[in-house]
Amino acid sequence: MIGTDVVSPKGDSLGDIKEVVIDPRTGRVAYAVVSFGGFLTIGEKLFAIPFSAFEYSVENSNYVLDISKERLEAAPGFNPDAWPSMADEKWNRDVYKYYQRAPYWE
Amino acid sequence: MIGTDVVSPKGDSLGDIKEVVIDPRTGRVAYAVVSFGGFLTIGEKLFAIPFSAFEYSVENSNYVLDISKERLEAAPGFNPDAWPSMADEKWNRDVYKYYQRAPYWE
Repeated sequence: MIGTDVVSPKGDSLGDIKEVVIDPRTGRVAYAVVSFGGFLTIGEKLFAIPFSAFEYSVENSNYVLDISKERLEAAPGFNPDAWPSMADEKWNRDVYKYYQRAPYWE
Repeated sequence: MIGTDVVSPKGDSLGDIKEVVIDPRTGRVAYAVVSFGGFLTIGEKLFAIPFSAFEYSVENSNYVLDISKERLEAAPGFNPDAWPSMADEKWNRDVYKYYQRAPYWE
């Protein structure tokens, strides 16, 4: 899963998955951590995006992410050497709310 | 999740999780790949075990695996440099059957 390409619904390359964050209890991927490479103007930032925001394409072996460039550019990213505290419920709520996804833990 | 200890229901150390295998479509952990270290007499072998066979202990931050030593010793393991073909449906069926777990893909 790590290294899998992420594309827009039109098929444009957005970036790739650098890490996955798994809920240890349920064994479900909570977040895919994406680097948007050259797509965004935000150098090395990473973005933890709810897994439910992705759709897997079996045909192309990649993930389709239907989020506008504007929304991604304004998203709460973080530096690779300063990950957010993912045990913090507020952080989780804020991220899921930003991407308009139902919390996976409810 | 990788590196998390695996213990018996009595709390005896069995080994730890070396890898996780995720179904890319659903984002669910299909298998935890476990090394049983000194517990089994089978040197460096790895074992892909259905995630549903584990129970996560929030208290101890480890996984409880309720499978007898005899059953683990007879389990279909593999060498770290020769992973099975996990795309093969028969392999998946055989493993889930061996551990008496309902297939995650149905």
